[in-house]
Amino acid sequence: MRKKWMSFALVGALAVSSLGLVVGDAQAKKPNQSANNNGKVKNVIMLVMDGSSDDLSTLARWYKGEDLALDSILTGGVKTYSAESAITDSAPAATALATGNKANTGNVGVLPSLVTTPGVEQVANEDIHKPVANVLEGAKLDGKATGIVSSSEIQHATPAGFSAHVVKRSNYDDIAEQQVYQNMDVVLGGGYNSLNEKRKDGENLLEVIDNKGYDYVTNRNELLSTDSEKIWGSFAPSALAYDVDRQTTKPEEPTLAEMTEKAINTLSQDKDGFFLMVEGSKIDWAAHANDPIGMISDFLAFDDAVSKALEFAEKDKNTLVIALTDHGNSGITIGNHNTNSNYDTTPVFAYIDPLKEATMTLEGALSLLKEDQSNLVEVAGLYGLTNLTDKEKAALESSEKLSATMVQLLAERANIGFTTGGHTGEDVFLYSYGPSKPTGLVDNTDIAHTMAKAMGFDLDKLSNEIFVNAEQSFKEAGYTTKIDTTDAANPVFIAENKNKIVTIPENKNIVIVENKNNNKVETHEFKTVTVFNDKQFFISEEMFKRAK
Amino acid sequence: MRKKWMSFALVGALAVSSLGLVVGDAQAKKPNQSANNNGKVKNVIMLVMDGSSDDLSTLARWYKGEDLALDSILTGGVKTYSAESAITDSAPAATALATGNKANTGNVGVLPSLVTTPGVEQVANEDIHKPVANVLEGAKLDGKATGIVSSSEIQHATPAGFSAHVVKRSNYDDIAEQQVYQNMDVVLGGGYNSLNEKRKDGENLLEVIDNKGYDYVTNRNELLSTDSEKIWGSFAPSALAYDVDRQTTKPEEPTLAEMTEKAINTLSQDKDGFFLMVEGSKIDWAAHANDPIGMISDFLAFDDAVSKALEFAEKDKNTLVIALTDHGNSGITIGNHNTNSNYDTTPVFAYIDPLKEATMTLEGALSLLKEDQSNLVEVAGLYGLTNLTDKEKAALESSEKLSATMVQLLAERANIGFTTGGHTGEDVFLYSYGPSKPTGLVDNTDIAHTMAKAMGFDLDKLSNEIFVNAEQSFKEAGYTTKIDTTDAANPVFIAENKNKIVTIPENKNIVIVENKNNNKVETHEFKTVTVFNDKQFFISEEMFKRAK
Repeated sequence: MRKKWMSFALVGALAVSSLGLVVGDAQAKKPNQSANNNGKVKNVIMLVMDGSSDDLSTLARWYKGEDLALDSILTGGVKTYSAESAITDSAPAATALATGNKANTGNVGVLPSLVTTPGVEQVANEDIHKPVANVLEGAKLDGKATGIVSSSEIQHATPAGFSAHVVKRSNYDDIAEQQVYQNMDVVLGGGYNSLNEKRKDGENLLEVIDNKGYDYVTNRNELLSTDSEKIWGSFAPSALAYDVDRQTTKPEEPTLAEMTEKAINTLSQDKDGFFLMVEGSKIDWAAHANDPIGMISDFLAFDDAVSKALEFAEKDKNTLVIALTDHGNSGITIGNHNTNSNYDTTPVFAYIDPLKEATMTLEGALSLLKEDQSNLVEVAGLYGLTNLTDKEKAALESSEKLSATMVQLLAERANIGFTTGGHTGEDVFLYSYGPSKPTGLVDNTDIAHTMAKAMGFDLDKLSNEIFVNAEQSFKEAGYTTKIDTTDAANPVFIAENKNKIVTIPENKNIVIVENKNNNKVETHEFKTVTVFNDKQFFISEEMFKRAK
Repeated sequence: MRKKWMSFALVGALAVSSLGLVVGDAQAKKPNQSANNNGKVKNVIMLVMDGSSDDLSTLARWYKGEDLALDSILTGGVKTYSAESAITDSAPAATALATGNKANTGNVGVLPSLVTTPGVEQVANEDIHKPVANVLEGAKLDGKATGIVSSSEIQHATPAGFSAHVVKRSNYDDIAEQQVYQNMDVVLGGGYNSLNEKRKDGENLLEVIDNKGYDYVTNRNELLSTDSEKIWGSFAPSALAYDVDRQTTKPEEPTLAEMTEKAINTLSQDKDGFFLMVEGSKIDWAAHANDPIGMISDFLAFDDAVSKALEFAEKDKNTLVIALTDHGNSGITIGNHNTNSNYDTTPVFAYIDPLKEATMTLEGALSLLKEDQSNLVEVAGLYGLTNLTDKEKAALESSEKLSATMVQLLAERANIGFTTGGHTGEDVFLYSYGPSKPTGLVDNTDIAHTMAKAMGFDLDKLSNEIFVNAEQSFKEAGYTTKIDTTDAANPVFIAENKNKIVTIPENKNIVIVENKNNNKVETHEFKTVTVFNDKQFFISEEMFKRAK
């Protein structure tokens, strides 16, 4: 299954470790760059709570019984719509937050094909699905350390939006490969299913991670005890457990706050500063299921991660922290049809006490349900449905969709309303802290530009530098080009002239140049990855200049 | 029906017009006060959209197709809970915003009897239902012009919260009387039912309004053409029409923006500055009915009023503007069960186009329904339910509650969700502009204190000055006291010693002192009103000192 450029790549890898690899200019900058930032922000920490809502923040505060970390940094609001819809998918939301561009459902770090939203600029035909630079790439090129942290698989839409470029968010193989070749310093989350031998393209990314010098850790203890400058933590095949379920189901996994703190401690060793993206991923999943326990669980876990970011930023004084949800989800409200007419005399405990009965999320409780459902009452109790009435018990026993029945019963008890099992379209709270912080009502695309400007670069300019059309560029330079899709899972761009053959694999940061005259092969490595959007290859200007 | 102190009051009124009334010290301050504010804010405009929500602001923006005035001044969030519930009633919400105190359902400008909310301080037994000063009263005592504007009857909870003190918000008679005797400069809204001969206490407040020198106006033309410094505009028996219905049903009524602009133009003539409260009242009512047309209608009308406030504030440069909703309502969301799985590909027009079909609100359309319902299809069409499907038509014709069926059908078409017919408990957006503006996450009680501080006074201190316990004070001064409830609708506080009889009616700003030795009667008038909370009379310190 290995294809020819793979062997070239291995030559390159050998060169790195033993012979001194020829690298792009940007690669060499990092150690020598000054820590003086000329008024620029040194560090940026972006924290995304996926699919949360302002209603949930209020409910979670009541549940916690004290102020949230987020409460101290509320500064405005964010519009969340996508290029094609009033309600965004997480992939275009992440694309907006990371690259400053509205996109379509599923799009990760590429321009959209369909624009129907009033006020959003149409995309020229030739730019459809063109990759666009994200703030992590900009930070990296400026010499900063970079990292991503998530409680889902790290290939999920939001972390992907800050580290990859694919037309379809479900394309985990491409996302994972790009992430590995982005040369980030810290990557922590779930998702080792996309790193190992299960991949369609035959790559073993775990080997690459190892070759690249990461300390690869797989549990909380390993994470907390490593002192490597490069850490790849993969703690679950896909997502990590909900925060409240962890002690019961996955005690070996780290919390989001622990991952965030470790990432900050590691990345902040870089004298040039760092960019870190943290996602509390599963608030969204619990919201889709209308499970207030999962929502509150991971909202509060996210808020703890925000605490860690703020602790660092307060000491550092040159760190911009931004936190937000990428979109609403579920239409959760404090109050439902039970409170139509007595809402104004219903005390806080009427909402919170029924929720406090639960010790596990819906997912957590159901994971303990026996196949014959003989422990149904016990499982319902874990989810807060204690002392079941006859009617509740009958509803559970006759349920055709137990998860739906359980959340309905709990919502009834807790007077919580939901309008949908999908995302919602409202503006959401903006939380920010530190120099150059955004305030007021902004668009989600403004967030990316604000971060980029704070760090001292321009995203549109950067897109032109790191994503040039390979075919067009090489043709203009007198090459013949082709995209070799003989191995469908591993398309390769090939440019050839009388002197050389240039081979560029997708998703990697390398180019292989073969000198036809002496048959010598050189592999050059760069700081950004090559993207194949199923039509065209996009490479960095630097890669093109070096290869041509 | 007239009672004895009424004739005393008339003596007082005579004295004002012909003989030179003996007035409290504060009364004389206004003309001589300096316009130099020593760093204090000169003017404060507080705009409350009752029962709106952040979701509605997003929906209304899409509907309008351009940015809102509010969008330019979003600065944080507001917690809205009451002393007894996670979800507030408008009366305690207004009490919080105006006086800085959490209160109970129904309470207007008085302390609560029941505190169940975590973190809210308990109220001492003797302070239960004690009136507490509001920012309008503080502004007035500082020599500023004052005004209230609403699209509901002016006695409704929110305007009442800024101008009256009653235990039960439904007590319109007391609220109206206090408002008339507050000596505000501009009062615009609905509610003349509570001013005229329909009152239980036999007062004709319209006469008092006339005696006090107001230009009393009852329609748009009269309002726009008056140049009086004191205007009382009462444009409807109870509430005004919804903004989009006005042209059809009540073309003689002014818009909220027109009332706001007129109020600002009039109040800003005062060299000492002004305090103005504006309420967009009926967003809340439409939300209770789950009518998105009424909600959007009056949200946008409110936003136009905000425009007027901002236009003034931008020129003036010494005006604090605060806008907010007092609580969420209805749990409205962009997205509902229709969009469970296709939300991310549902364009903006799928929500907005069905709403745009409507030319009237639910209330407006139903007001045109004939008793025999023969024009049901036409009325449904006015509400946007055009080209009815057979199923929709059948639902309407067989409906037992037509209003509910109509809003359900429209919500289905427009993919709008609702969780409740009541208020909701989420934190809401805070909008503010100008010097001393509040930012970040604040409690609704903070809003009152922020405004007071900006104008240079302390609300708690003020409460002690304008609400002393009459019985206690006069007893300490050697008087015998009683509350005379012979006329149940007109309770009177009476204090007597060997030299005088002091008579104090509720809801007015006067005290009548009879000298027993010569039978002379003097009426003194003050800047704040006397409050009887069904147990005790509360009068100003100044009134007590003058009368004892």
